[in-house]
Amino acid sequence: MRPLDLIRRKRDAGELSSDEIQFLVRAYTKDEIPDYQMAAWLMAVFIRGMNGAELSALTGAMLHSGEVLDLSGLPGSKIDKHSTGGVGDKTSLIIAPVVAAGGVTVPMISGRGLGHTGGTLDKLQSIPGFNINLSLSEFLRALQASGCGLIGQTAEIAPADKKLYALRDVTATVESPNLICASIMSKKLAEGIDGLVLDVKTGSGAFMKTEKDSVHLAELMVETGERMGKKMVALITDMDQPLGLKVGNALEVEECIEVMNGGGPSDLIEVSVELSAWMFYLADKTPSVERGRELASGLIRNGSALSKFREIIAQQKGDPLVVDHPQRLPHSQHQSSFESPSTGFVSSIQCEKVGIASLVLGGGREKKEDVIDPAVGLVLHKKVGNAVREGEPLCTIHYNSDAHLADARNLLWQAYSIAPKPPSVKRPLIHRIIVGKGLQA
Amino acid sequence: MRPLDLIRRKRDAGELSSDEIQFLVRAYTKDEIPDYQMAAWLMAVFIRGMNGAELSALTGAMLHSGEVLDLSGLPGSKIDKHSTGGVGDKTSLIIAPVVAAGGVTVPMISGRGLGHTGGTLDKLQSIPGFNINLSLSEFLRALQASGCGLIGQTAEIAPADKKLYALRDVTATVESPNLICASIMSKKLAEGIDGLVLDVKTGSGAFMKTEKDSVHLAELMVETGERMGKKMVALITDMDQPLGLKVGNALEVEECIEVMNGGGPSDLIEVSVELSAWMFYLADKTPSVERGRELASGLIRNGSALSKFREIIAQQKGDPLVVDHPQRLPHSQHQSSFESPSTGFVSSIQCEKVGIASLVLGGGREKKEDVIDPAVGLVLHKKVGNAVREGEPLCTIHYNSDAHLADARNLLWQAYSIAPKPPSVKRPLIHRIIVGKGLQA
Repeated sequence: MRPLDLIRRKRDAGELSSDEIQFLVRAYTKDEIPDYQMAAWLMAVFIRGMNGAELSALTGAMLHSGEVLDLSGLPGSKIDKHSTGGVGDKTSLIIAPVVAAGGVTVPMISGRGLGHTGGTLDKLQSIPGFNINLSLSEFLRALQASGCGLIGQTAEIAPADKKLYALRDVTATVESPNLICASIMSKKLAEGIDGLVLDVKTGSGAFMKTEKDSVHLAELMVETGERMGKKMVALITDMDQPLGLKVGNALEVEECIEVMNGGGPSDLIEVSVELSAWMFYLADKTPSVERGRELASGLIRNGSALSKFREIIAQQKGDPLVVDHPQRLPHSQHQSSFESPSTGFVSSIQCEKVGIASLVLGGGREKKEDVIDPAVGLVLHKKVGNAVREGEPLCTIHYNSDAHLADARNLLWQAYSIAPKPPSVKRPLIHRIIVGKGLQA
Repeated sequence: MRPLDLIRRKRDAGELSSDEIQFLVRAYTKDEIPDYQMAAWLMAVFIRGMNGAELSALTGAMLHSGEVLDLSGLPGSKIDKHSTGGVGDKTSLIIAPVVAAGGVTVPMISGRGLGHTGGTLDKLQSIPGFNINLSLSEFLRALQASGCGLIGQTAEIAPADKKLYALRDVTATVESPNLICASIMSKKLAEGIDGLVLDVKTGSGAFMKTEKDSVHLAELMVETGERMGKKMVALITDMDQPLGLKVGNALEVEECIEVMNGGGPSDLIEVSVELSAWMFYLADKTPSVERGRELASGLIRNGSALSKFREIIAQQKGDPLVVDHPQRLPHSQHQSSFESPSTGFVSSIQCEKVGIASLVLGGGREKKEDVIDPAVGLVLHKKVGNAVREGEPLCTIHYNSDAHLADARNLLWQAYSIAPKPPSVKRPLIHRIIVGKGLQA
């Protein structure tokens, strides 16, 4: 097998066999194929695409480039959730305790914030002491003890993805649905799960801005997971404005605690319950998704989710007292109101700009080396459709550096649109559900 | 300007400005852009293509990456010919003396054999002592003295092409009409010419097997040359069987001498005269191509071409006596007949296989490091349409190593087809002529 022949075939829109794809990925991971050949191949894949068999071969090759957890020793189904990322998208911190409290094992390996979106790991690290760097054996013990572990990607997981992603990043081959799918799925399947619930975001704050693109990516991931023997479902959920009211690491942990305390904003509750319900259903914990919703809501109502959250935090060396005393979370030194310039209704919120506003305050990274400020962020008072008077606060900016405040205000100014009438069409919170063929049978 | 943005734009089938293309080529030549980014860009260009403005910007950037000869001090027009390469394609060795004998300066920078095709430099080097490695200033003096110089590419000419070609070779991005055009034209325009006659081969022995592909490449080159202010014409000539009867380095020099002595095969004469005629016409040496043909034929008939050939050889330190005593050229130790297996007519000759047969005998290189045997090759006795009896020689193999003879015979066996009837359609020698817009006006 010669790399050149395989590049040429994909260049000419031909199909590669599973063996051929495996050869490329293996040889590249072992530094036997140079970056320039892989770059040419990635560009050919970007433009020409892949069929389902090729995509699952690529995903499998990347998955098996590293360790795959064996959770067969643990009882019951192991189910995870993955979100393609958004602004204020904090559901993992609610779902993991809820679903683990319901008796399903949740082996959750999460990522950092990417671009304008937040990352579960960054949010967790705003809890004083929380250790996301468990070894795989510590992770396994955590899963055994509490049914849940929340960690970052280790070097053992899908090293091919790490190397390929770094190359894609510098060769303009990131935004390919096929390559995104293989990257996500290879890491998620390494968790040793039986099923996966995908939360594919759509709208101005998502990576996929249109519903069409979101559905396409969701379908690829569902098909790929099913080809690899997993139970799969994808929910296309709205990210045309931030989810919930709080954006920023500690602020989002706080909001998750509110939800598990029976409060919190309704959109965040609805998406969290819906995703949890599907996880219960995939785990065969409930005979229907409807029953899954009831179970999830009940576990929140009776305090089980919150006590599971305490348990998870303690297990990973965090301060569990934050759950009952959120004032123990980092708080910014300053707050500033961002007020409406006119009277009317919020007609839209450019969601990506809100994410960038939080980032420039210090809540995210512009460069890899940047250190995150866990305390900063935004608390929204008005969302799309809400009435607002001139001078009334649209949101509160939590900040530590005056230098960043002006940038954030400017971005919020661009983000909010106020109109004399409320928007005529209300976007649904859950746009579509793409159920794997295995679940339809 | 960020390389990543330019890769992304071409990936999405967008257009790059002249400045942007120049930036890419310059930075890559100076090692400021890594191979993997250029590889991704080349693959995007391969698949998405380029428009005429982009192509001439690319050609110009590659051209100006090195020295461009200034021949304005020499009188009259400077015209060159370039062939895309074929088997037995030896016209340069006839055309250069003919056209220089007619008073037109011919600054010819040629290449080595590539794949199954022969190269002018390799042929010239079968003449004992012939030096193709003149410096640019020696080349200039040769042009001044005799009106002609025949050299290889120097390090000063289009270094960007050298670096890009090496990368294309290992990333499956060679066979792109745009990239082929830019590579050829950047080197040819560095010769400081006023006009260029292109011989674009078509058929089983050419790189472009179909007339459609050949015409497309020809049109790109003619358009690009004209955008850069050159007089341009392209002849699409037949390469579905070898040109002339001799294939192999010294054998081809011998055949060129035959032609300039008034003999030689008619197809070789016709193509050589036609190309020379266009060169005279582009140089304003003759008022029409027809007059150009007459001039070229006359210069052969009256011995002027042959004595110009002697002059060129002597000037470049070769042995000019080969012209009158071709036995001074290298000859193989052995000859072997390849005989027809049946009686009938030659219906086709797979021309690429004939080229590879000469290559395996030692007449070409399989690897860069291979040393060429100038003496080996093939002398054809039958060409397409000729009647042949069983056992009659189709060609004679000139060889020095028994080990290679069997391989060559096997390839010739695959190359020749004998049918009971002559082929019903005779391919033309000159398929089409693509005249630049500037010449049509």
